[in-house]
Amino acid sequence: MITLASDFGTPYPAAMKGVLCRRTDARLVDIGHDFPRQDVRTAAFWLRETLPYFPMATHLVVIDPGVGTDRNALVVRAGEHTLVGPDNGVLCPVARRLADDAAFESFVIDESRLESVDPAGGDSPSSNATALSSHGSNSVNASNTFHGRDIFAPAAGTVHETRLDDLESLAWLSPLENDPVDLALPEPTLEDTRATGEVLVVDDFGNVITNVPGTFLAEYDRIVTNGESVPVGETFAAVPVGARLATVGSHGYVELDVNQDRGDEEFGLEVGDRVVLESASA
Amino acid sequence: MITLASDFGTPYPAAMKGVLCRRTDARLVDIGHDFPRQDVRTAAFWLRETLPYFPMATHLVVIDPGVGTDRNALVVRAGEHTLVGPDNGVLCPVARRLADDAAFESFVIDESRLESVDPAGGDSPSSNATALSSHGSNSVNASNTFHGRDIFAPAAGTVHETRLDDLESLAWLSPLENDPVDLALPEPTLEDTRATGEVLVVDDFGNVITNVPGTFLAEYDRIVTNGESVPVGETFAAVPVGARLATVGSHGYVELDVNQDRGDEEFGLEVGDRVVLESASA
Amino acid sequence: MITLASDFGTPYPAAMKGVLCRRTDARLVDIGHDFPRQDVRTAAFWLRETLPYFPMATHLVVIDPGVGTDRNALVVRAGEHTLVGPDNGVLCPVARRLADDAAFESFVIDESRLESVDPAGGDSPSSNATALSSHGSNSVNASNTFHGRDIFAPAAGTVHETRLDDLESLAWLSPLENDPVDLALPEPTLEDTRATGEVLVVDDFGNVITNVPGTFLAEYDRIVTNGESVPVGETFAAVPVGARLATVGSHGYVELDVNQDRGDEEFGLEVGDRVVLESASA
Repeated sequence: MITLASDFGTPYPAAMKGVLCRRTDARLVDIGHDFPRQDVRTAAFWLRETLPYFPMATHLVVIDPGVGTDRNALVVRAGEHTLVGPDNGVLCPVARRLADDAAFESFVIDESRLESVDPAGGDSPSSNATALSSHGSNSVNASNTFHGRDIFAPAAGTVHETRLDDLESLAWLSPLENDPVDLALPEPTLEDTRATGEVLVVDDFGNVITNVPGTFLAEYDRIVTNGESVPVGETFAAVPVGARLATVGSHGYVELDVNQDRGDEEFGLEVGDRVVLESASA
Repeated sequence: MITLASDFGTPYPAAMKGVLCRRTDARLVDIGHDFPRQDVRTAAFWLRETLPYFPMATHLVVIDPGVGTDRNALVVRAGEHTLVGPDNGVLCPVARRLADDAAFESFVIDESRLESVDPAGGDSPSSNATALSSHGSNSVNASNTFHGRDIFAPAAGTVHETRLDDLESLAWLSPLENDPVDLALPEPTLEDTRATGEVLVVDDFGNVITNVPGTFLAEYDRIVTNGESVPVGETFAAVPVGARLATVGSHGYVELDVNQDRGDEEFGLEVGDRVVLESASA
Repeated sequence: MITLASDFGTPYPAAMKGVLCRRTDARLVDIGHDFPRQDVRTAAFWLRETLPYFPMATHLVVIDPGVGTDRNALVVRAGEHTLVGPDNGVLCPVARRLADDAAFESFVIDESRLESVDPAGGDSPSSNATALSSHGSNSVNASNTFHGRDIFAPAAGTVHETRLDDLESLAWLSPLENDPVDLALPEPTLEDTRATGEVLVVDDFGNVITNVPGTFLAEYDRIVTNGESVPVGETFAAVPVGARLATVGSHGYVELDVNQDRGDEEFGLEVGDRVVLESASA
């Protein structure tokens, strides 16, 4: 199985799927292709929260604001999973989770040794995609702007057809000598009756997902969030439709939500905003 | 085959797919994950109009404004199909269709006996998702806000691996004793040269789909809709680009459309609005 | 393998998938269903740029503003690929590419001889979808507004189960006697230090893709585009975040882009606009 995640919208992911289907019969599963554009941290969060539910798989991840620069292209072996994507931090939080906090191993893709993508209709304009790359280190046929299609997808297709403990046999892979670029999601400050954190992400429902562990809410019926008192509920439906609540979301963090409406608008919070949660009885 | 329908957007459906893929190699087909949020009636309409085109399948449906409340979680056996989703009416119109108007059978999922979902990286924050549910009846690992991942997907995966006439063997399923929550789409009033109905849904093209059967148009070249005369056309192209028409849509109902533009805006109609269609010759 | 491309949004593609799954176990891969509505040229461009990356496949294409008119429904054999869709030009640019500029062959679908689609629940309102088509040439059960479901999907499913050199054996296919409706993407005028072209498409990132071959940029460090000087860069990151550049996009054409922002807004360009590129040293 190969999962695909990107910020590409339509129809760039289809070209990646074509490249994959030429290399493998693996099942393809979309994680999503409308992740916020070039937002490495948000994608890192969502990948960490979704990929661990999958069985053994190869995960193709292309959130890549540095495409075409000298940032490395990586293959990461984590537990029984393999991740393929840019060395910009997007892979690290999920790799740690998949490896169950054991070490994960990173390999660098040597783009010049990767078998090139070869679409039908070879003398077409797209063979000009390398017109400027005479000085580059890219494989002869790799564009400078779409490594998802030209580097990461062919790598993922081949990796998927290779045994997990045999990645070392691939001539175009070599161990990453330094550490990969890391990205740590921010940690909250937890005091006795007070937690200071921030908004990690807002989901498509408008639920405000903080980085404060859900256990903080266990003892309270109400809390004060940024100075305002809200009920703690086990479910959205614990409060009337349109009313606010704090709850423990499906990721295990404190969420600030509205039953059947958008919490981000009602609370006036967005990604990165500071959130102070306090006991309402204080 | 397992189909998936939800109002989840991105990337929550991916977590459901991971859970499914751990339990079955079945082909996964998305019906859609951008159904209007928590709009049970609209989803019920679209499911009734699309699922009957599928061969024998398990259909996972999560439009669930009452997640975490004591509403039942159901498995429904209808014809050669199985539906898995909340007991809020969303499953009934399509179940009747799939059963070809014969009876369908409903089973309740006992969440506490369902095998729990177990993502990689077990001591992660998401194991806190149940921090508040000490009083709940949920299985130890089910969140209160994402039953799609924690209840419905594991149920659907297991149901798919079970023979249709053997659902009774699943220990976590028991026959629903009362009737399921039903949801009837509104019926029109049909008189001789006049039909009074309402807008059932507006599709992504802006086509206004009413609940008046298409046969009403069979005798007319023009009709009056809410006081205004429009031509009846067999195809969008029966009228100039940008012009209005009444036609029989692909669901068999009268639609108020505009050739290559949005009928809802041109006619000023939205879901639930009353529509009176009359013979233009009157 | 069957790929699917349409401008249908949600959930009409699901009905096509159901119809396909009744006829074949082929892998289904979405190219995209949010192509600009009824925009044949834009879809033709994207199909030409994505389908050639796929291995041998059947490609179902439904961008069909003339649905229900007497425009032909086609099956096209191009190289080792088969295309199924309306005769409005959308298939031609990709057919030429897939055939590697050799000839491709077009067949007309005789809708009245195609096996009809037969959803579960046969006496449902959707059996009224043909209420107006007594005079039409459609198969008894084909709607006038959704040939994707009623004509193209059943044709694609059956074509996929037929050997490529055996399409002639299908009783509902006959060779197209005239030429198919063609659609040529506009060609630029290339002079020594000047190229005059137009904007072919704007992608989801806002990158402005022109029809000027990327080789035009090979000799320049800067160019003048519509009177304004911009740097030529190999990668987005060749300029600061938010700055403009001209580059060779992944399709081999000159693109006018902004690093991590929308080029269309910054350059004030949209599809069809004229673009004059000149040497900046002139």
